[in-house]
Amino acid sequence: MTAQEIAAFLADEFPQIDGDFEVVSVSAKEIVMRLPVKDKHLRPGGTVSGPSMFALADVAFYVAVLANVGPKALAVTTSCNIDFMRKPAQTDMIARAHVLKLGRTLVVGDVMLYSEGMDKPVARASLTYSVPK
Amino acid sequence: MTAQEIAAFLADEFPQIDGDFEVVSVSAKEIVMRLPVKDKHLRPGGTVSGPSMFALADVAFYVAVLANVGPKALAVTTSCNIDFMRKPAQTDMIARAHVLKLGRTLVVGDVMLYSEGMDKPVARASLTYSVPK
Amino acid sequence: MTAQEIAAFLADEFPQIDGDFEVVSVSAKEIVMRLPVKDKHLRPGGTVSGPSMFALADVAFYVAVLANVGPKALAVTTSCNIDFMRKPAQTDMIARAHVLKLGRTLVVGDVMLYSEGMDKPVARASLTYSVPK
Amino acid sequence: MTAQEIAAFLADEFPQIDGDFEVVSVSAKEIVMRLPVKDKHLRPGGTVSGPSMFALADVAFYVAVLANVGPKALAVTTSCNIDFMRKPAQTDMIARAHVLKLGRTLVVGDVMLYSEGMDKPVARASLTYSVPK
Repeated sequence: MTAQEIAAFLADEFPQIDGDFEVVSVSAKEIVMRLPVKDKHLRPGGTVSGPSMFALADVAFYVAVLANVGPKALAVTTSCNIDFMRKPAQTDMIARAHVLKLGRTLVVGDVMLYSEGMDKPVARASLTYSVPK
Repeated sequence: MTAQEIAAFLADEFPQIDGDFEVVSVSAKEIVMRLPVKDKHLRPGGTVSGPSMFALADVAFYVAVLANVGPKALAVTTSCNIDFMRKPAQTDMIARAHVLKLGRTLVVGDVMLYSEGMDKPVARASLTYSVPK
Repeated sequence: MTAQEIAAFLADEFPQIDGDFEVVSVSAKEIVMRLPVKDKHLRPGGTVSGPSMFALADVAFYVAVLANVGPKALAVTTSCNIDFMRKPAQTDMIARAHVLKLGRTLVVGDVMLYSEGMDKPVARASLTYSVPK
Repeated sequence: MTAQEIAAFLADEFPQIDGDFEVVSVSAKEIVMRLPVKDKHLRPGGTVSGPSMFALADVAFYVAVLANVGPKALAVTTSCNIDFMRKPAQTDMIARAHVLKLGRTLVVGDVMLYSEGMDKPVARASLTYSVPK
């Protein structure tokens, strides 16, 4: 699926999150997503909340799964391990997702999260999705 | 801190999440929190979203940290590992948080998540918080 | 499978680890295994090595899988998350394994690791096994 | 520390594991270690055991910590999350370790594990080490 097809699919299937995330680019090697950071994502001190970062990592890897297996709305997260490493800036956040294993039922990979304009990652997540046959 | 003190502290320090979560009970052994499930937490098929469950686990363990070390707004999540095991029901969700290690800088524990009325857990999370000295 | 059947199965199928671990008890609720700690498991300062603890958690959860699904030698670990929380003593180690989700292909659960004679856990692991159909 | 200094340090401080692992290369960007696979690392079917892979990931990240903070024997693993993605071959295994966050007390990073001669990773681990001040 292309970036445009995926954006249309997300808008159709997940109207609740429509507009929260942007598909920046889709390639065989990497998916890039953006979280436009708004007040609702912030915590005291101007930091982006952990659940907002989890949500970004989760949707970015979901898009990576879609890009590989096609429009399967019922792919679900089975596990996520996330390390929060640095305080995010008050800028938009960028996720870079990579598929490491495309199995028959399980897809495994990782996502690096950045505050736009910072070189070093803010968080790193490993995810496993289960894909219906 | 008591359940009431913690609820007041959350309302003061985290106005963004005020009303999203309820402190059910606080004891030395276990913290119980509730997520009153609303439309914004749902996904197609009536399931509670992964980020909503992550947020519940995260705040429940934060409350467990507060109950042990007092009102430290700046305690932050350093890592979380979450396994999504069953499809949640469309009922409220309950989190049961336990501290396993109360160190000088790191607090480690786990949280079991249930759909109210179901015996078996929907998800299980392990969390580590860093607490400022 | 009973504790005796499992011990015989391990000796047959995994001669490499025969004698390294003991099946203490097997019930529907909990599997208990023991690691008789020897010189090869120790590190400077008398602490039990991380890989020894990982191996104990892994075999304890494997036995929990066997107890639930029968003698499937080809069940394999797909993921493990382990938190090392306290310095172990120089005594034997005890693992307590629990199955939280028995799915058609994935079995999810946790293992608490103790130094014999200590109340508080030394480490906590979450594991997922994949079971062939 | 250089590869030679690290190899000498490991031989001095961890005589139990001497000869089990080889330091292939050390740079600011990546540490490469090798596990010469022997009978004791194998399981039925010729696969390398999970604990052997955990041990390789753990020592590779320990070396990455040493390379960054100097000879601190007392750096300890606080957590590890490992995904086993493919069946390893019966060849030596290679670990590639990267530091993502070098904090005052915690060092966070990841390790990719390969069977020599295979392009795709066999396993991926995220590790956190605690370093004494």
